[in-house]
Amino acid sequence: MSDKTEITASVLVIGDEILSGRTKDKNIGYIADYLMQIGIDLREVRIVPDVEQEIVDAVNALRARYTYVFTTGGIGPTHDDITADSVAKAFGVGISEHPRAIELLLTRIKPEDLNEARRRMARIPHGAELVENRVSTAPGFMIGNVVVMAGVPSIMQAMLDNVTPRLKTGVKMLMETVQADSVPEGAYAAGLGAIAEKYPDCSIGSYPSFTTGKFMNQIVVRSKNADSLAAALADVRAMIDELIAERAKA
Amino acid sequence: MSDKTEITASVLVIGDEILSGRTKDKNIGYIADYLMQIGIDLREVRIVPDVEQEIVDAVNALRARYTYVFTTGGIGPTHDDITADSVAKAFGVGISEHPRAIELLLTRIKPEDLNEARRRMARIPHGAELVENRVSTAPGFMIGNVVVMAGVPSIMQAMLDNVTPRLKTGVKMLMETVQADSVPEGAYAAGLGAIAEKYPDCSIGSYPSFTTGKFMNQIVVRSKNADSLAAALADVRAMIDELIAERAKA
Repeated sequence: MSDKTEITASVLVIGDEILSGRTKDKNIGYIADYLMQIGIDLREVRIVPDVEQEIVDAVNALRARYTYVFTTGGIGPTHDDITADSVAKAFGVGISEHPRAIELLLTRIKPEDLNEARRRMARIPHGAELVENRVSTAPGFMIGNVVVMAGVPSIMQAMLDNVTPRLKTGVKMLMETVQADSVPEGAYAAGLGAIAEKYPDCSIGSYPSFTTGKFMNQIVVRSKNADSLAAALADVRAMIDELIAERAKA
Repeated sequence: MSDKTEITASVLVIGDEILSGRTKDKNIGYIADYLMQIGIDLREVRIVPDVEQEIVDAVNALRARYTYVFTTGGIGPTHDDITADSVAKAFGVGISEHPRAIELLLTRIKPEDLNEARRRMARIPHGAELVENRVSTAPGFMIGNVVVMAGVPSIMQAMLDNVTPRLKTGVKMLMETVQADSVPEGAYAAGLGAIAEKYPDCSIGSYPSFTTGKFMNQIVVRSKNADSLAAALADVRAMIDELIAERAKA
């Protein structure tokens, strides 16, 4: 289902604290929803530790494959915040304090408190544009097709809002859901597979869940083509209705 | 901080529904906590779509790098459940119905309801061992160093419990937290970096959060060496106490 007008993305979450389980990531789900809304297709997510080679390798692998890479984490003032330097290394460019970034930090920090650690937050790879944020003022940045953001959710969200006008967006993926209550996946799988084959420009998925012993399965139909979506959706609904009727008679 | 006795892992989450934002993954955080408890170091996580080549490439990349790979998702009966076939392809082995898997399905499904779709859940790569689960009975499997599990959290958790006795486990990572309330990262970053350098077998991270305008930063010290951890922890606490005292006088 790929065409040249597709805008794709990957998310790179950087942080030992996610891998240790200490922090439960909330940014992946938020960014996934956000990109869906603006017609950018999220295709892959990676979570890597605060280790330079890991960040460099992941950034280089992902930026070659997708239209955009969004990174979160590791742009604070402490020694374990190495994302900016790692991204500069990935791009093979230098890194130094950006005057506008220093300016932004000084709107919130007194000059006598702008110590070496805090100045690290103004280190921006050469060639990058700043991505400002109204929550904490320390900026993220965008270099090439890589958007580098904070890990703290409220700050990341502000950065995402700030950078969005600069992004190419695509045709929005449309999505509809059919509730298949009390019909087990095994009963509709064959019919669903046939519908999926009939509509190659739709993506059809089945998502089971169990609540108190009852099936609450959801069938999700997605497409960028509204007509195909409507037709596939009608077929799915008809199939499920028929199965429910058969099971009521049985 | 690597040594030959380290047992490492990666998690591969398979599913369009995570990338679309429709489902918010809960398995990554659960598995991260779980592995931490049994001394296995989670080093990388990837989320890929229900696309064969993506799954094959990710499985092959990850199984070469880490002691174990844990996959979630895509082992149900519908057409979009392609994980078992993809993993077989990654290993270059065949795949067919496993007699014990059929047996397990029949403990819950009447023979006349065991249709072609449900039989798909008994397709197990050749050479794999089953990973049984007491919640839904359709088994996961383990082949080589790859553990393939369900996406539904309760089923995945049962599979993880079932497979754990078969895993090599390592020295547990010890972890202590120092609360650095009302002390901003920028104030302790330099001192923290110095402590990190002093204890190379400790990993020290700083995790900021904002609640109603107040800093509630947490410093986390991790190590497999209890003595180093205790010493580093004492240094961190002393440093923070000193900063709090200085700031109270100022």
